[in-house]
Amino acid sequence: MTTPLAAKIAREYGTPCAVIDMDRVERNIARIQAACDAAGVANRPHIKTHKSPMLAKLQIEAGAHGITCQKLGEAEVMAEAGIDDILISYNLIGEEKMARLGALQARANMTVAADNSTVIAGLPQAAAISGRPLSVAVECDTGRKRAGVETPAEAIALAREIAASKGLVFAGFMLYPTETGWAEAQKFYDEALAGVRTHGLDATMVSTGGTPNLKNVGKLKGATEHRPGTYIYNDRMQVAAGVATWDDCALNIYSTVVSRAGPDRGILDAGSKTLTSDTGGLDGHGLILEHPEARIARFAEEHGFLDLARSNTRPNVGDVVRIVPNHVCVVVNMMDEVVMVRGEEIIGTLPVAARGKLR
Amino acid sequence: MTTPLAAKIAREYGTPCAVIDMDRVERNIARIQAACDAAGVANRPHIKTHKSPMLAKLQIEAGAHGITCQKLGEAEVMAEAGIDDILISYNLIGEEKMARLGALQARANMTVAADNSTVIAGLPQAAAISGRPLSVAVECDTGRKRAGVETPAEAIALAREIAASKGLVFAGFMLYPTETGWAEAQKFYDEALAGVRTHGLDATMVSTGGTPNLKNVGKLKGATEHRPGTYIYNDRMQVAAGVATWDDCALNIYSTVVSRAGPDRGILDAGSKTLTSDTGGLDGHGLILEHPEARIARFAEEHGFLDLARSNTRPNVGDVVRIVPNHVCVVVNMMDEVVMVRGEEIIGTLPVAARGKLR
Repeated sequence: MTTPLAAKIAREYGTPCAVIDMDRVERNIARIQAACDAAGVANRPHIKTHKSPMLAKLQIEAGAHGITCQKLGEAEVMAEAGIDDILISYNLIGEEKMARLGALQARANMTVAADNSTVIAGLPQAAAISGRPLSVAVECDTGRKRAGVETPAEAIALAREIAASKGLVFAGFMLYPTETGWAEAQKFYDEALAGVRTHGLDATMVSTGGTPNLKNVGKLKGATEHRPGTYIYNDRMQVAAGVATWDDCALNIYSTVVSRAGPDRGILDAGSKTLTSDTGGLDGHGLILEHPEARIARFAEEHGFLDLARSNTRPNVGDVVRIVPNHVCVVVNMMDEVVMVRGEEIIGTLPVAARGKLR
Repeated sequence: MTTPLAAKIAREYGTPCAVIDMDRVERNIARIQAACDAAGVANRPHIKTHKSPMLAKLQIEAGAHGITCQKLGEAEVMAEAGIDDILISYNLIGEEKMARLGALQARANMTVAADNSTVIAGLPQAAAISGRPLSVAVECDTGRKRAGVETPAEAIALAREIAASKGLVFAGFMLYPTETGWAEAQKFYDEALAGVRTHGLDATMVSTGGTPNLKNVGKLKGATEHRPGTYIYNDRMQVAAGVATWDDCALNIYSTVVSRAGPDRGILDAGSKTLTSDTGGLDGHGLILEHPEARIARFAEEHGFLDLARSNTRPNVGDVVRIVPNHVCVVVNMMDEVVMVRGEEIIGTLPVAARGKLR
């Protein structure tokens, strides 16, 4: 079964094709902005999900207070489009990056993260290039064991290092609590804040992160902002996390069934080079809306292996199906553009302008 | 420990950065061409690995007989660069694709694969647009349960359908035996060939595939060509498969250690948006040449989680390390360009011109 819109997408663009429904995108933007407003924290959306200046501007128009980027190259694309309040939530290291950060800071208000002295030691170079102070937040680990200092004492020490560095300003703390770790995050933050205050410093930015954490937004007393990314599109992971419904999933991959060599199996023209091998901890690699009992069992690079054993309805070769991906951020990153629709109407294409900015 | 070349790459390009050693690339091209020559089969390299017309031309200059693409968009990039013998080893379906295939076939010699009647029914449209016959090979499943008919009887029936279709020419059979399945592939092929011959047809293309299968190349009696892809760069999977040594691995990801928040762990600036979550069935996500006992345990999108518990040497923040990826084809697909070196000398950048050609 192929919907009329799917047939039209396949005819005009071919498959596999990422399609975003702008009605849903706008609804997601409005809903999460309202949730941040209600919780009394600013919304600083992470653009890693959509990588589009146009969508970042929609988020800002709806009330977002600046944006978050993970890579300098993403920030460059966003600053080029006129966005001027950007947090790069990442440890930036090296002369090449300092030169680019300095150039960025000369034309946009930049904040960067740091969790170690090597990073802090490099940043004055960027500040010197820009000719004005650079804001630096201390990244704190609150359970993920990713980046971030592990103790309040280290956070306090780094805050002091930042404040003592030429051209740097201590901005505050960046946290990314686990979904169940907000009490620990509060304890960490309270201790770090009290510590920096004894040294005459204060935290003007206290930033929490994550779309799955939208159910916790505002829980950290003292938080000034939240950095959700995925909420603009949502995906199977967000539905599993209980922060979105299937109707909130704004991006589908439209894919053609290209082979049915066995009765219990089939092949989609979307493989790991479209949907990626990121499972997000879920079983199977996406939900097929037309055949929810079918399982995308595994991938070759350009083949999606369909297990139809438990599926009461089975697609024919040539059918175009719609897939809700497990993890939408990494899927968008695979393509140069997405197709925009409203309901059944095709609007046009949107470049994924900051895609492929590895650096 | 950062090598002098790694320091130079980081300074000139930043990290993460894909670096290919052209001496190794050329050696890999020559070695596998010689292996195909010795086995008496033509080499039709799969360009999915490098996605570069420049490298495809090096393969052809070294003796390759045409190329293989998985996507129409890849073939378009290659034809645009003047390559005129192209196999698209994939079921192509839909008007949009037939129009593009017709335009391609008008200027390059195209062969496509088919494993079902729906695909075959669409192809005459492309032939009509091109104004000349289109070669079609029947894809046979020989154990992978991917695309491909499961029985010789189906292969024979499809060959007859192709031969009876206006504008189509039956080219032969495309196989992709498993590494241990060449005896079964021989049986399948012999039966299919005998069958088509009783109907007055013959197979001029008998194509086998896979870099791990290079140890089997020439084993299929009657094979006319082989389609290896990964051999141009090699990776951890090919070393594990016994078809390459570490010295044959021509592509490294240069990545900076950006955090060491705990003694037993660290963070690389290469995550799933650089190295991908394709494990290739291996433990860990790549070999770090400077710290072979370190384990790239898992990924966030832009963070590689280093487990250093068993590593006798541990990197410092700011160190630039070289990583041999598990599966190089999907890694190259993440970036718009790679940096070329010869030994310690940087030559310049090479666009991954056919990257992101999902369709």
